[in-house]
Amino acid sequence: MRSKESYSSKLPGPGELTLISRIRHLAANTSSPELRLGIGDDCALLRPRAGEELAVTTDLSIENRHFRLDWHPPEAIGHRTLARGLSDLAAMGARPVAAFLSLGLPPALTQSKARRPSQPNAQHNSWIDQFLAGLLALAEATKTPLAGGDLAQSPFAVADIVLIGAVPRGRALLRSGAQPGQSLYITGSLGAAAAGLARLAQLAASATSSTPPRIPKALATTLAAHLYPRPRLAQGQWLVRTNLATAALDLSDGLSTDLAHLCQESGVAAEVDADSLPIAPGATLDQALNGGEDYELLFTAPAAARLPRSIAGIPVTRIGRIVKPRSGRPQVTLLAEQRREPLLPRGWEHFS
Amino acid sequence: MRSKESYSSKLPGPGELTLISRIRHLAANTSSPELRLGIGDDCALLRPRAGEELAVTTDLSIENRHFRLDWHPPEAIGHRTLARGLSDLAAMGARPVAAFLSLGLPPALTQSKARRPSQPNAQHNSWIDQFLAGLLALAEATKTPLAGGDLAQSPFAVADIVLIGAVPRGRALLRSGAQPGQSLYITGSLGAAAAGLARLAQLAASATSSTPPRIPKALATTLAAHLYPRPRLAQGQWLVRTNLATAALDLSDGLSTDLAHLCQESGVAAEVDADSLPIAPGATLDQALNGGEDYELLFTAPAAARLPRSIAGIPVTRIGRIVKPRSGRPQVTLLAEQRREPLLPRGWEHFS
Repeated sequence: MRSKESYSSKLPGPGELTLISRIRHLAANTSSPELRLGIGDDCALLRPRAGEELAVTTDLSIENRHFRLDWHPPEAIGHRTLARGLSDLAAMGARPVAAFLSLGLPPALTQSKARRPSQPNAQHNSWIDQFLAGLLALAEATKTPLAGGDLAQSPFAVADIVLIGAVPRGRALLRSGAQPGQSLYITGSLGAAAAGLARLAQLAASATSSTPPRIPKALATTLAAHLYPRPRLAQGQWLVRTNLATAALDLSDGLSTDLAHLCQESGVAAEVDADSLPIAPGATLDQALNGGEDYELLFTAPAAARLPRSIAGIPVTRIGRIVKPRSGRPQVTLLAEQRREPLLPRGWEHFS
Repeated sequence: MRSKESYSSKLPGPGELTLISRIRHLAANTSSPELRLGIGDDCALLRPRAGEELAVTTDLSIENRHFRLDWHPPEAIGHRTLARGLSDLAAMGARPVAAFLSLGLPPALTQSKARRPSQPNAQHNSWIDQFLAGLLALAEATKTPLAGGDLAQSPFAVADIVLIGAVPRGRALLRSGAQPGQSLYITGSLGAAAAGLARLAQLAASATSSTPPRIPKALATTLAAHLYPRPRLAQGQWLVRTNLATAALDLSDGLSTDLAHLCQESGVAAEVDADSLPIAPGATLDQALNGGEDYELLFTAPAAARLPRSIAGIPVTRIGRIVKPRSGRPQVTLLAEQRREPLLPRGWEHFS
């Protein structure tokens, strides 16, 4: 993250240099010994530990596609931006080493709000301040240094998050390791994020403002899975340490779509037992199967493996098995009340 | 780069899976031994060499801010996107290890053009195909594997490039190492990119189409510095090997702005000799001082250091010196015909 053209001349208003300095200052709270040089030069410098390899992922979040300014509190957009990348690290069993944030923002989102006469001393945080507060809170909680990025003016809000993680050499959890006969597991429960989003859409529809609706206290828990998902970092690292998982990915698009990806990369098929699915309270079967952004881990393990009931406090559930692919058989089959039906990828369509 | 929600459900039209497969296939031409796992999983996996540290940079390119669809050929936009990131690696003296590309695109840019009846067998490349051709040609020329990324639908074109490079531990060229008494050098010449852009703007203004103007053969060389800049990777690595440079950065915003950044990070001031500036043919002094995107290296070395006249085929010119900062004295002073005048940062304002 540099005070270069995209910063210094393109985020208009008096606050741009302050913004860089502020990000640099805030990011200093998230440093680590592996980060030799953070924000301020042409590149950041990382010094990986011996015996580890690096996992790298990027995730693009675009206004009205992955979030809406009139639905999502800025803190939640910041949290979700980082959570998407951290969840990819979790899926490989990697621990976070550094994050990089590229932000394109309309000028209004970088400007401080006018002080209200009734609260002359109140903090008058801009959208970007609140976005960063949400992102950095998750960064600190997961020990992820914000090591750099880029910032430019843009007609729409866009955030690209880059995560670099570390994993013992040759031990990363891949999508391609599942074999017929192995069992299929997930962490946590399914559908909570989609159910939360549906509730958020209702709230926003009944509001008249162009700013995100106030979230009633009674709904905070219901919406948390959507607004503040917790990437399963500890669970992914546990699977690497114990060497129990043969393949893994994170449920970002919904079980039906992500399981198809796992089958595709492993060259296998899968059966899911509908009765065994841990559907989140308040979620429907459809939300559990096709709702996205639960950010739980989906993984496979040998049938004889003894998995605990929970990993680092999160329940683990066996939901089916890997089978041989056969022509004429669907890639993923849902077994429900003595019926077999194809489970087609119907990944969730965000806000389009 | 994964076949996840942003790919599979958000780039409409029949070509989206083909697009992922095609990128994966094309990227396979740019692999390297350090890239253990490329496109297709939740993360890419890199295995850094012992004794090296990693340099990481991200650069956001936004439509109408860093490029214009009606001015720039798609191949040039792809080339420039990657060149921005590679130039940051060059500035640290790092060699490229992997690139990651996050792309947000309007649907029209991913669709193939209709075949013309007169050329039924001609390739009917979409904008994205041409963009990728330009990016991957530079990736292959610089031995930079495209290791992953993300792809999503967007109301405007946006590309975030992530570059990871490697440099011997503790040897990276920083912005912060310049000291009073040292000499100031640049590679190549200044102002060619700004002069090329001005010529491109003229061409575009006289054209009636919304597609980029055809570039007459006689102008190809004039425009190349703007459309197809060559990052100074070999020169940066040479400076690391010889240990001659005390500080460096790349000229992305223009000499006046970038030299101010170097002074800021090193806590020094600088004097530039106007007569010594290697102004590119056809460029003005203003373009040489304030034009951006020349992507030459600006570096400092001890006054006693003996620099060659050229490094890896590119001329090197001493353009001034580092001096002590003093209150009341400008951070950067331009010495011209016995006059001293402050050289204020007037970094170039792209297309705003």
